[in-house]
Amino acid sequence: MYEKYWQEMGEKTTIVIPGWQSLSYFSDISNLCWFLEPEFGREIVRLHNVVGNAITDARYIVVGTGSTQLYQAALYALSPPDAPQPISVVSAVPYYSSYPLITDCLKSGLYKWAGDAGSFNIEGPYIELVTSPNNPDGFVRNSVVNRSEGILIHDLAYYWPQYTPIVSPADHDLMLFTVSKSTGHAGMRIGWALIKDREVAKKMTKFIEINTIGVSKDSQLRAAKVLKTVSDSCSEHSDRNGKSFFTYSYNEMSSRWKQLREAVKQSGHFSLPDFPSEFCKFLGYKFEPQPAFAWLKCEGEITDCESFLRSKKILTRSGKHFGFSPKYVRISMLDREENYNIFVKRMSVIKMKIDETCM
Amino acid sequence: MYEKYWQEMGEKTTIVIPGWQSLSYFSDISNLCWFLEPEFGREIVRLHNVVGNAITDARYIVVGTGSTQLYQAALYALSPPDAPQPISVVSAVPYYSSYPLITDCLKSGLYKWAGDAGSFNIEGPYIELVTSPNNPDGFVRNSVVNRSEGILIHDLAYYWPQYTPIVSPADHDLMLFTVSKSTGHAGMRIGWALIKDREVAKKMTKFIEINTIGVSKDSQLRAAKVLKTVSDSCSEHSDRNGKSFFTYSYNEMSSRWKQLREAVKQSGHFSLPDFPSEFCKFLGYKFEPQPAFAWLKCEGEITDCESFLRSKKILTRSGKHFGFSPKYVRISMLDREENYNIFVKRMSVIKMKIDETCM
Repeated sequence: MYEKYWQEMGEKTTIVIPGWQSLSYFSDISNLCWFLEPEFGREIVRLHNVVGNAITDARYIVVGTGSTQLYQAALYALSPPDAPQPISVVSAVPYYSSYPLITDCLKSGLYKWAGDAGSFNIEGPYIELVTSPNNPDGFVRNSVVNRSEGILIHDLAYYWPQYTPIVSPADHDLMLFTVSKSTGHAGMRIGWALIKDREVAKKMTKFIEINTIGVSKDSQLRAAKVLKTVSDSCSEHSDRNGKSFFTYSYNEMSSRWKQLREAVKQSGHFSLPDFPSEFCKFLGYKFEPQPAFAWLKCEGEITDCESFLRSKKILTRSGKHFGFSPKYVRISMLDREENYNIFVKRMSVIKMKIDETCM
Repeated sequence: MYEKYWQEMGEKTTIVIPGWQSLSYFSDISNLCWFLEPEFGREIVRLHNVVGNAITDARYIVVGTGSTQLYQAALYALSPPDAPQPISVVSAVPYYSSYPLITDCLKSGLYKWAGDAGSFNIEGPYIELVTSPNNPDGFVRNSVVNRSEGILIHDLAYYWPQYTPIVSPADHDLMLFTVSKSTGHAGMRIGWALIKDREVAKKMTKFIEINTIGVSKDSQLRAAKVLKTVSDSCSEHSDRNGKSFFTYSYNEMSSRWKQLREAVKQSGHFSLPDFPSEFCKFLGYKFEPQPAFAWLKCEGEITDCESFLRSKKILTRSGKHFGFSPKYVRISMLDREENYNIFVKRMSVIKMKIDETCM
């Protein structure tokens, strides 16, 4: 979805890296996160200040190979190192399907996936993962267990104004972000964490040192340039020249959601979540969330929505992977325009075919 | 050490990445390793063919965020998924100090560090890590346990002609390489594995998907360009214009080892390993290994060589971290020229001071 915007931006985000640059493992040995490129750190702070979606004051920044690696670094940092049992990791259903896989991949003795936070009832310390807006369903979330021994990780990958109104700067202990969802550069594999506690930031840095001895400098330098372009485009925002990154992508998401809601309404066989409208302090107007994923429900008798849609040549991911019902599927809203149009078109064809069968 | 060479190469390895490039997670969905940039895959094969240090025919290539991540991917792929006990991971002392840390970092139920391969005596399956040439001591190695239930990982990060004679192309089941040691680009965080078995390659790919959802495309594209420049420089080798990457770095290593051996000889208080001379099929002459690290022994009464050298302002890493005696230290031979010269100079000052004390 973002490709066109970046093509229009032309040379602004082009990066040139000579062969002798970034040879060393180290970026800034005076920083707690010694492999963070200072330029990238500065652009992270600047962008959050421009957008107003997260507090960066008195925070440590740790860079990761995507937020996936940072999630693992957080688990490593937050788990008690010498507990007799692994600490439980929970998240409210429906949750991001990769979290159980990542958590249990190596059968760690430090932490263990314990499923739905809503039905979690084991005494003692636990880690709760709060994804807000949530993947897959797009809702704004808060922690649900709320016990004194809980430790929270906030995955804020989608807390950007093209997806959801920015109501206030997030101010949690440990927040994860990624370029793949903010600017669309998934291939860079760059994410960052904002962390209040120094010891947690140190242990996360240690994990990334052990896991991959730091993070690609090339991608960090490129990400710095991309974030800079995004921030610059926002300060030109008042010109209304249509080139602000978030206005562009807000409009794109808005039009895609309008198309989808129209197709769903016409079909009568599906439903989509309804979101409350809120005022976005960044964009300066009220709107309903328009998430990166559509959480579609098959109404009526169809129990396996994924299989049903596959038979109609629409590839989705079943709700069962998200700890939820197979009547639901997750659909990406960020695909290339031509693919997205084919998807919406196929949705309307389903309608006709069902009608034909009914006649 | 390599910085100067890459500066001299000028624009040849400069890479330009426009903002709209590499947005997607995917590089080549037709490839088993779907996040490997095809261009980088081709340059890996070409370079191994040029140097003759590894067989690439009928091998799967998996790219990793440095060979550190590939080591973990290999452990994940080679460990029995449902064994009652974690599989033992061993390596002969002295071994790379990070291997125990990486292996036991998450207290995995799949695998567990079991120390020195030389004294390993637990029945049943095990994984043996063979680093050749070895880090820290530079010796060419073979597996030492040699039981039928052993699974081998060959870390060949240093099997390049600037460090050791290339006697034949390595032909093992699972071989790890990295740009940080071959070309000096540690900041890229790029490594690769050559794997015979399709299922092992698939599981390694799966691990990297779970761990970091692939590997930075920017760094892969840059690494492709760097490997291409190295291969190109070798085909111009016959010109003897001194610009072949391996001739340049061989000469550099050779001169550094000469300086160090001279200083050690004069002092009389230290010793270095003696290596047999072998014929290098790539360079076309016989030479002794000149490793990326010097494995220095304090002779005489000094028991803690690291502390002793620290008091002389020489930073090293104690042999105890490598499962060995603290009479040994590991010293990097790849530092910038000015730092290397200071180190050698300080070694000779030690000599004088000890003599003064003795007088």
